[in-house]
Amino acid sequence: MSPCTDAIVIGAGPVGLFQVFQLGLLGLKAELIDVLPEAGGQCVALYPEKPIYDVPGVPVCTGRELTRQLLAQAAPFLPPDADTGRPCNLHLGHLVSEVSALPEGGYRVATAQGLVRRARALFIAAGAGAFVPKTLALPGLDAAPNVHHHLPDGTPPGWVGRHLIVSGGGDEALQAVIDIAGTNASHRPARLSLLHRRDQFQADPALDAAVRTLIAQGQVDLIVGMPSASQISPQGTLSALDLLGADGQTRTQPLDHLLIRQGMSPKLGALTQWGMALERKQVAVSPSTFESSLPQVYAVGDINTYPGKKRLLLCGFHEATLAAHAAAAALRPDAPQHLLYTTTSPLLHERLGLL
Amino acid sequence: MSPCTDAIVIGAGPVGLFQVFQLGLLGLKAELIDVLPEAGGQCVALYPEKPIYDVPGVPVCTGRELTRQLLAQAAPFLPPDADTGRPCNLHLGHLVSEVSALPEGGYRVATAQGLVRRARALFIAAGAGAFVPKTLALPGLDAAPNVHHHLPDGTPPGWVGRHLIVSGGGDEALQAVIDIAGTNASHRPARLSLLHRRDQFQADPALDAAVRTLIAQGQVDLIVGMPSASQISPQGTLSALDLLGADGQTRTQPLDHLLIRQGMSPKLGALTQWGMALERKQVAVSPSTFESSLPQVYAVGDINTYPGKKRLLLCGFHEATLAAHAAAAALRPDAPQHLLYTTTSPLLHERLGLL
Repeated sequence: MSPCTDAIVIGAGPVGLFQVFQLGLLGLKAELIDVLPEAGGQCVALYPEKPIYDVPGVPVCTGRELTRQLLAQAAPFLPPDADTGRPCNLHLGHLVSEVSALPEGGYRVATAQGLVRRARALFIAAGAGAFVPKTLALPGLDAAPNVHHHLPDGTPPGWVGRHLIVSGGGDEALQAVIDIAGTNASHRPARLSLLHRRDQFQADPALDAAVRTLIAQGQVDLIVGMPSASQISPQGTLSALDLLGADGQTRTQPLDHLLIRQGMSPKLGALTQWGMALERKQVAVSPSTFESSLPQVYAVGDINTYPGKKRLLLCGFHEATLAAHAAAAALRPDAPQHLLYTTTSPLLHERLGLL
Repeated sequence: MSPCTDAIVIGAGPVGLFQVFQLGLLGLKAELIDVLPEAGGQCVALYPEKPIYDVPGVPVCTGRELTRQLLAQAAPFLPPDADTGRPCNLHLGHLVSEVSALPEGGYRVATAQGLVRRARALFIAAGAGAFVPKTLALPGLDAAPNVHHHLPDGTPPGWVGRHLIVSGGGDEALQAVIDIAGTNASHRPARLSLLHRRDQFQADPALDAAVRTLIAQGQVDLIVGMPSASQISPQGTLSALDLLGADGQTRTQPLDHLLIRQGMSPKLGALTQWGMALERKQVAVSPSTFESSLPQVYAVGDINTYPGKKRLLLCGFHEATLAAHAAAAALRPDAPQHLLYTTTSPLLHERLGLL
């Protein structure tokens, strides 16, 4: 049977990280799951270097700095794995695909990547939903083995010596083109194209200039057009895209590999299927416990709604705190419920690893 | 007529300071009043050097450090007076003694020190109440001109050349004895005594040792006994204390001046008279607006109560934020109510003085 723990926290953004900290202070163990390859949620995925001015007691910090601090704060409750040194209860790159109530109480959570965990309480800190790469809404692309959304991690990519088209006109697409053009010859495609709907990018001027130089040097082809249809081979690979030009004409563009770099977009996805009461795509919660309509399923941060709700980080921190206390009271009804303070409590100091 | 502003915040502890910041972000001006001589509330008055571990995004800080950061964060909304350089809307050393509703709406607030202000909304961030010096519960002491609770600020004290008794056995009393014994002869009393109920102090060992040395050198007399009665002259001055000794005998101890240094104690005081609904000495509030039973009177931080309430700093920050938004919506019903973010909003950047 899959391991059972006190709590599973879905979403490793700022509020999810603080949720693990508050659960830890109360002596509850948590597993933390996020679809992104690093912790920090949209703070890191969308605006890592933008200053934030309204975290109480922090006059200014970037999303990345705040994440680093929250990771440090939660560190006593994110113990490192002996082999990898990474927190053994932090599961990155995992998209939660299934949540089901267990007959004995508690919940079973499974991810699309094959992780299965059981817990007595569930904390949904999923912000605007799981951040997944935007894709092209054309049939057959999801299953095509030669359609990619990420640069390969270490191993030589499948597109070596073939024709690779990178789709997109923002920072992510331009950075990918620059990175691929700059790898050594044994890792490069034979032909590298950039596909965008018009001959103008929405990107950092430095990236824009670098890609324009690559185009002028003939290292990169610019293909202008809007993908309107996909041609899928009998083996299920993408063989060509039909592109609608500014002239109203459609042309067929053959290719060997397609790398889609059109940014990230949040998706509620499976979460809407778990049976919680929703209000306008937010999870409706009690403002005293932040519990959803499902018992011991709490929703904190941007994903929840209640009267007066403001989608601010500092509100999410409060919600995570009250949710942790509500869960502790429900899971351990006999334990003393008086509030302990980190300034004075030896028990909290022990849990924080200070003693 | 007294000046009218958007908001008066009572209590300059961490939550009161963050209240001013949140009101400022929403374009509302605030006057901040506190009985203590410096900002920071009990964080600074009771545990300035103790580490706090549960401020979100701040793995560890002392009460004094947190206060310094919150003052820096609120600085755009605490503009300095041209003459003194101190924030012109921060009124320290003021005990709010009277709050009354105005016929035209809003409230009038008066302090025991003579400050009078009017505002359209009131925010009570008074923690456990106003921190006032503990005194001796004996008749006539309150009005006696030769009974003191603070060291004089600059001017030579009235006790020069007379007999001064300092009452207390903690850090505050011992520090006062050391300070007074160390002033130059023109500012010293002719005789300096320390009065405590027993020949043992509850103080920092270094202070304890220093006072023991002064006693051994004959610079300070230790008087052991429990004050049981006061002798008041026809002019209203305190002329002697009756002291009950460990032997059960009462002796009369004449004196010229008495300095009471027995610590601080929070008092709700006048606040209980303002007509708000209270629950077990806390102000009952709505968890979506943090408004009390009086319109546009909000209570935030340790002084309020609502279902699920936890007396934690981070909860107070959330409460101050939602209260500020509720007040803004009530005071400016026609203004757009969509949420602005400090990462992206030019209007907020302008209010923060960043443009």
